[in-house]
Amino acid sequence: MELKGKPVDQGYRMPAEWEPHSQCWIGWPERPDNWRNNAVHAQDAYVNVATAISRFEPVTVCASSAQWNKARSMLPEHIRVVEMSMNDSWFRDTGPTFVIGNCEEKQNNKIAGIDWNFNGYGGLDGGCYIDWGQDLLIARKVLEIEKTPRFPHSMILEGGSIHVDGDGTCLTTEECLLNKNRNPDLTKEQIENELKSFLGVKKVIWLPRGLHGDDDTNGHIDNMCCFARPGVVLLSWTDDESDPQYERCMEAISVLTNTTDAKGRKFEIFKLHVPGPLYMTVEEAEGVSQDGDAKLRIPGTRLAASYVNFYIANGAIIAPQFGDKKWDTEALHVLSSAFPGYEVVGVEGCREIVLGGGNIHCITQQQPAAASALPN
Amino acid sequence: MELKGKPVDQGYRMPAEWEPHSQCWIGWPERPDNWRNNAVHAQDAYVNVATAISRFEPVTVCASSAQWNKARSMLPEHIRVVEMSMNDSWFRDTGPTFVIGNCEEKQNNKIAGIDWNFNGYGGLDGGCYIDWGQDLLIARKVLEIEKTPRFPHSMILEGGSIHVDGDGTCLTTEECLLNKNRNPDLTKEQIENELKSFLGVKKVIWLPRGLHGDDDTNGHIDNMCCFARPGVVLLSWTDDESDPQYERCMEAISVLTNTTDAKGRKFEIFKLHVPGPLYMTVEEAEGVSQDGDAKLRIPGTRLAASYVNFYIANGAIIAPQFGDKKWDTEALHVLSSAFPGYEVVGVEGCREIVLGGGNIHCITQQQPAAASALPN
Repeated sequence: MELKGKPVDQGYRMPAEWEPHSQCWIGWPERPDNWRNNAVHAQDAYVNVATAISRFEPVTVCASSAQWNKARSMLPEHIRVVEMSMNDSWFRDTGPTFVIGNCEEKQNNKIAGIDWNFNGYGGLDGGCYIDWGQDLLIARKVLEIEKTPRFPHSMILEGGSIHVDGDGTCLTTEECLLNKNRNPDLTKEQIENELKSFLGVKKVIWLPRGLHGDDDTNGHIDNMCCFARPGVVLLSWTDDESDPQYERCMEAISVLTNTTDAKGRKFEIFKLHVPGPLYMTVEEAEGVSQDGDAKLRIPGTRLAASYVNFYIANGAIIAPQFGDKKWDTEALHVLSSAFPGYEVVGVEGCREIVLGGGNIHCITQQQPAAASALPN
Repeated sequence: MELKGKPVDQGYRMPAEWEPHSQCWIGWPERPDNWRNNAVHAQDAYVNVATAISRFEPVTVCASSAQWNKARSMLPEHIRVVEMSMNDSWFRDTGPTFVIGNCEEKQNNKIAGIDWNFNGYGGLDGGCYIDWGQDLLIARKVLEIEKTPRFPHSMILEGGSIHVDGDGTCLTTEECLLNKNRNPDLTKEQIENELKSFLGVKKVIWLPRGLHGDDDTNGHIDNMCCFARPGVVLLSWTDDESDPQYERCMEAISVLTNTTDAKGRKFEIFKLHVPGPLYMTVEEAEGVSQDGDAKLRIPGTRLAASYVNFYIANGAIIAPQFGDKKWDTEALHVLSSAFPGYEVVGVEGCREIVLGGGNIHCITQQQPAAASALPN
């Protein structure tokens, strides 16, 4: 069912990721021109992420017709596997952004999904692949399966380029949302107004840039900075002044310390030091097929690896581990401090996901707990 | 979730089609080597059937990745459209056979689905197509979407080859179930025992043959005879002694008048006269692409057209109409008599479905109303 108008006018808001979920949606990596060795390593990593999350909430994995059998056989039985075509497997960016609202007739919330426009991370001007026709349908297909109403939007937006605190504040980056390869005809103010109307936020905080090396997404916020709760953020960090990431951290912390959220709170900032630095090896790059329409993968490329790219499940933090013993361990400590009362679960082998251009947050999409607003 | 053992031992039975439904599943015709003119006419007919049913219960239509957009745009918005691959679009035969049982902990019934084996209506020995790999997955995919547990079965069985009255009796045909192209290693008694164990029936009534001309299915019962309620059946009929169908009607009525159902009731029999006879035209046959792996379509072939091939929705009978004014009208009258209190809805244009080898009952699969036995 298609809903007209603006979600905020109908009492909807995007809840924070720590609000209760009914389930988590994940895609299934397949394309050999992005995932090395026919995606076999990435598939192992996705299975590990899905399995970790499924300890805390139901998980649905979507896989193409060609991969359904394989996904079904690799995933534990309690994870639902649904057929769905995709150009790549980043459900954070292509899945619906769920919004909820109070429903006076029912005990439960009402729920709907925003179906943003999508152009493969920049279309022909630096996008990650040339054909994104299947990705464009993912949000709608998810909402059809869940019998959940849909707010279509013509603005190009990936879910990984926004974070909300559920209490009026949105975090994003200028590098992505103001990039001329996204919505060149919209001003910063117009984009803010759309975020306010669709996410139900009152204030948008703009960091200048995302993580160094995150060229695939043009600096998505979800690899750089996120909320732990209202007034508390986690920021990708480096102490190494020679790392190009350092300047980005300084910029971000300057913005964050000189602003307040929508409710006037100053920010408490947890620093999450990046691993490595990590670089793509020759073997890794050579495992990527060069005959598709995806961006080339070059040996020696700095990986956009960040511990901020975690997922908040019901009662748990599902965080990437990169095989960097020092910073892997440190990240789990920081996350435990930032999320008291949560079980912090590190998932090994997430280097295979960052090789494809993202991490745990990028491949997941939470569906908030709420009753459908549709009959039946 | 996979369930082990036999449904009957766990309190399950297949409900009659007139018991309440939560929804109806329908596939989407596509293959040009079975559906003429790239399936455009059949798609119109499927839309009409789905729309008619959707007045009485929710409908989910499953369409391949290539056809999802088209199906979504042709179907009314209140019908759910889900991506699913298939070799052909006969969800009666490839979908799950749902079974229900009393669940003492809950107010609702528990529900599960039987996932029979399938070989394309006879495999390489007279089957309708050579590759049925996608059809084999349909039941499981439907059950995954609905989070409903699954009883796998190794016996070849199409849902259209059985009818139950929900009260202990199963109707089937020897022509299909004992055909050597289905389960050559099982005896009639062994097949009966499997039907009893999985459908929860006590008695199986075997008609010798199905409808004349129904060579695609080897005489499925659902084109020949069905229940209206316990003790009452509708039988495809002809008064024309020169019609090869006549002998089949005589055989069937002889069996039905000389037996009783599982509860000892004699049968009341409503005769539903077949249309026509109808034959495939040259134009119709020529519209079917000959370069696929499907059975050839020959001009002049007698169409296996039968009004028994209707669907019982919640409170309504959705019946095919063939453009044969006399028998179309007569069928609606007979159905109204057999189903007092039901709205009888004739769907025009069902010739396009019988050209592909079946009709409304063949393309539908009811899901009984019941709570899932799985958490969440």
